[in-house]
Amino acid sequence: MRMYDIIMKKRNGGELSQEEIGFFVKGCTDGSIPDYQLSAFLMAVYFQKMSEAETAALTTAMAHSGDMLDLSAIHGVKVDKHSTGGVGDKTSLALTPMVAACGIPVAKMSGRGLGHTGGTIDKLESFPGFTTALSKERFVENVNRVGVAIMEQTADLAPADKKLYALRDVTATVDNLSLIASSIMSKKLAAGADAIVLDVKTGSGAFMKQEQDARALAEEMVQIGARAGRKTVAVISDMDQPLGYAVGNALEVKEAIETLKGNGPADFTELCLTLGSLMLMVGGKANSPEEARTKLETVLQDGSALDRLARFVEAQDGDPEAVYHPSLLPQADLILPVVSPQSGYVSHIACDEVGMCSLILGGGRETRESRIDPAVGLVLHKKVGDDVKEGEPLATLYANDAEKAKQARERLLGAYAMALEPPEEKPLIRAVLS
Amino acid sequence: MRMYDIIMKKRNGGELSQEEIGFFVKGCTDGSIPDYQLSAFLMAVYFQKMSEAETAALTTAMAHSGDMLDLSAIHGVKVDKHSTGGVGDKTSLALTPMVAACGIPVAKMSGRGLGHTGGTIDKLESFPGFTTALSKERFVENVNRVGVAIMEQTADLAPADKKLYALRDVTATVDNLSLIASSIMSKKLAAGADAIVLDVKTGSGAFMKQEQDARALAEEMVQIGARAGRKTVAVISDMDQPLGYAVGNALEVKEAIETLKGNGPADFTELCLTLGSLMLMVGGKANSPEEARTKLETVLQDGSALDRLARFVEAQDGDPEAVYHPSLLPQADLILPVVSPQSGYVSHIACDEVGMCSLILGGGRETRESRIDPAVGLVLHKKVGDDVKEGEPLATLYANDAEKAKQARERLLGAYAMALEPPEEKPLIRAVLS
Repeated sequence: MRMYDIIMKKRNGGELSQEEIGFFVKGCTDGSIPDYQLSAFLMAVYFQKMSEAETAALTTAMAHSGDMLDLSAIHGVKVDKHSTGGVGDKTSLALTPMVAACGIPVAKMSGRGLGHTGGTIDKLESFPGFTTALSKERFVENVNRVGVAIMEQTADLAPADKKLYALRDVTATVDNLSLIASSIMSKKLAAGADAIVLDVKTGSGAFMKQEQDARALAEEMVQIGARAGRKTVAVISDMDQPLGYAVGNALEVKEAIETLKGNGPADFTELCLTLGSLMLMVGGKANSPEEARTKLETVLQDGSALDRLARFVEAQDGDPEAVYHPSLLPQADLILPVVSPQSGYVSHIACDEVGMCSLILGGGRETRESRIDPAVGLVLHKKVGDDVKEGEPLATLYANDAEKAKQARERLLGAYAMALEPPEEKPLIRAVLS
Repeated sequence: MRMYDIIMKKRNGGELSQEEIGFFVKGCTDGSIPDYQLSAFLMAVYFQKMSEAETAALTTAMAHSGDMLDLSAIHGVKVDKHSTGGVGDKTSLALTPMVAACGIPVAKMSGRGLGHTGGTIDKLESFPGFTTALSKERFVENVNRVGVAIMEQTADLAPADKKLYALRDVTATVDNLSLIASSIMSKKLAAGADAIVLDVKTGSGAFMKQEQDARALAEEMVQIGARAGRKTVAVISDMDQPLGYAVGNALEVKEAIETLKGNGPADFTELCLTLGSLMLMVGGKANSPEEARTKLETVLQDGSALDRLARFVEAQDGDPEAVYHPSLLPQADLILPVVSPQSGYVSHIACDEVGMCSLILGGGRETRESRIDPAVGLVLHKKVGDDVKEGEPLATLYANDAEKAKQARERLLGAYAMALEPPEEKPLIRAVLS
């Protein structure tokens, strides 16, 4: 078998066999296929697409290119959750203690992020002392004891995906449905969960700007999961404006804590309940959405979800007191309101631009080497559809640098669009696919 | 400027500016753009194509990526000729002495071939002692004194093309019109001729199997030449069966010598007269095709074309006696007829397969390291439309290895298709474009 023939076949619109895909993924992992052939192949895939069978084969081959995590030592049905990401997406922080409190074991691999804020791990590191550098044994032991553990993704999880992703990133071949779906799902499969709940975002702040694209991606991933024997469901949710109000690492942790106390933003709480219900159902802890929702509402009301977060933080060397006293989390020196120069209704918030404000303030990484400042970010006060009076604050900035705050303020003002009439309401949850 | 953005623009179907193409070619030449970005770009070009303006800009940038040969020390209008290649294509061997004898200075850069037979240089090396490793000074001096010189293409002629061609070759991105046209024409522009005559082959033995593709390529190259200020004309000629009868290095030299004596195959002679007429006209040595043709027929009849070949061979250290006594050229040990197992008309000759016979016998290179045996090859006796009786020889093999001869014989028999009726005749010259 030769990589040249595989490129040619895909270029000409042919369907690759499982053997051909296996050959290519193996050569990608062991370095025997040069990067220039891989990137030409990726561009051919961009144009010719991959069939459902090809995508499934690619996902499986990439999942098996490194370690396949064995979670059999963890009791119960392990349910993983993945979000395609967006601005203010702190879902894992609140959702995992919620479902753990309902009896779903959460054994999660997570990454650090490039972009406007950090990834889940960066956010969790806002808790003083928190670590994700767990041994496999401690990881499993924590899940069995506490119900939740989050570990940093190891280098040997789906190394073929890592290699291909790095190439796609520099050759303009990221945005292909099969490549996106297989990249996400290969890591999920290798991470060993029995069932997977996907949160596919759509809108100006999401990778998939159009709802139809988000739906296609979700369908593709659900199919891959099913082919791989993992129960997989997906939610299409809105990311046309930030989720909740807080954007920035410690600020998002605080909002997640408020949510676990039952005082969270309506949209964020609703998303957690929707995703949580699905996790309970695929995990066999509820027979209907109503039953699942009732269980989740109970763990919010009786404080057991919040307690679960504290136990989880403590089990990974973080200070559990910060869960009950968020003032122990990192605090920014400068707290500045951004006031509206006009009255009207918020008609649109450029989600990406809000993310840029967080990045400018130091809340995200521009390069892999950047250090994140956990304290900085912003909290919105007005969201789409809200009525604003001139001089009312649109948001509050949390900064540690006056010059950066000034830049972020300008950028944030530019992100708000106002109108005389309120815009049409868009539902938060667009669809659930299974 | 970033290569990423250039890939993305082309991927999305945009038209690149001259500056963007210049940036990309420069980065390709100096190695600052990695191969994986170049190959992804090439695949994007394969799918999105290039406009006429982009192709012209690419050609010019690649031509200027290395040395631009300055032929101003050579008197007269320098006319170069290029063939897209085929089986039995020994045109340069006969054509260059013919036009030189008519007063057109020929200063030609040529290459060695990979494939069924060698390139022009390999064929010329059948003359004992012949060298193409000329200094620039000797090259110019020879053209001024003898009228013809052929030099091996230097490494610094269009190095960007060399780099890109090597990548295309291993990433299935060879067959794109703009990339083919710019690759050929960049070398022609850098090689310094004032005018260019192109022989674009079509048919089963050509790179362009379909006549419409050959025509499109020819048009593209003529346009590039015109934009670069070089008078360029193109002939579309048949390569659905081998040109002439001989295939193999010394065998083709012998056939070229016969042609210069006026005893050549009708098709090959006709092609030389057609291309030669165009060369005389673009070179200002004839005002009409009729005048040009008469001049060329004269130099064949009076022996001056043959003498010119001898002077040319001698000027490059070869033995001129071999021109008058071809028995001095390398001779094969085994001479074997291949007889027809049936009677009928030859309806088709699989041109590529005839080439493979030559390769099997040792007449071509399988890899860059292969050594060519100049003596071996084959001479066809029957071509398309010919009447054959069972037991009549279809061809004669010239071999130095009995086992290889056996393989070549089988292959050659398979290359002939016979029918009860003669096939429709196809013209040798399909079109002339200028």
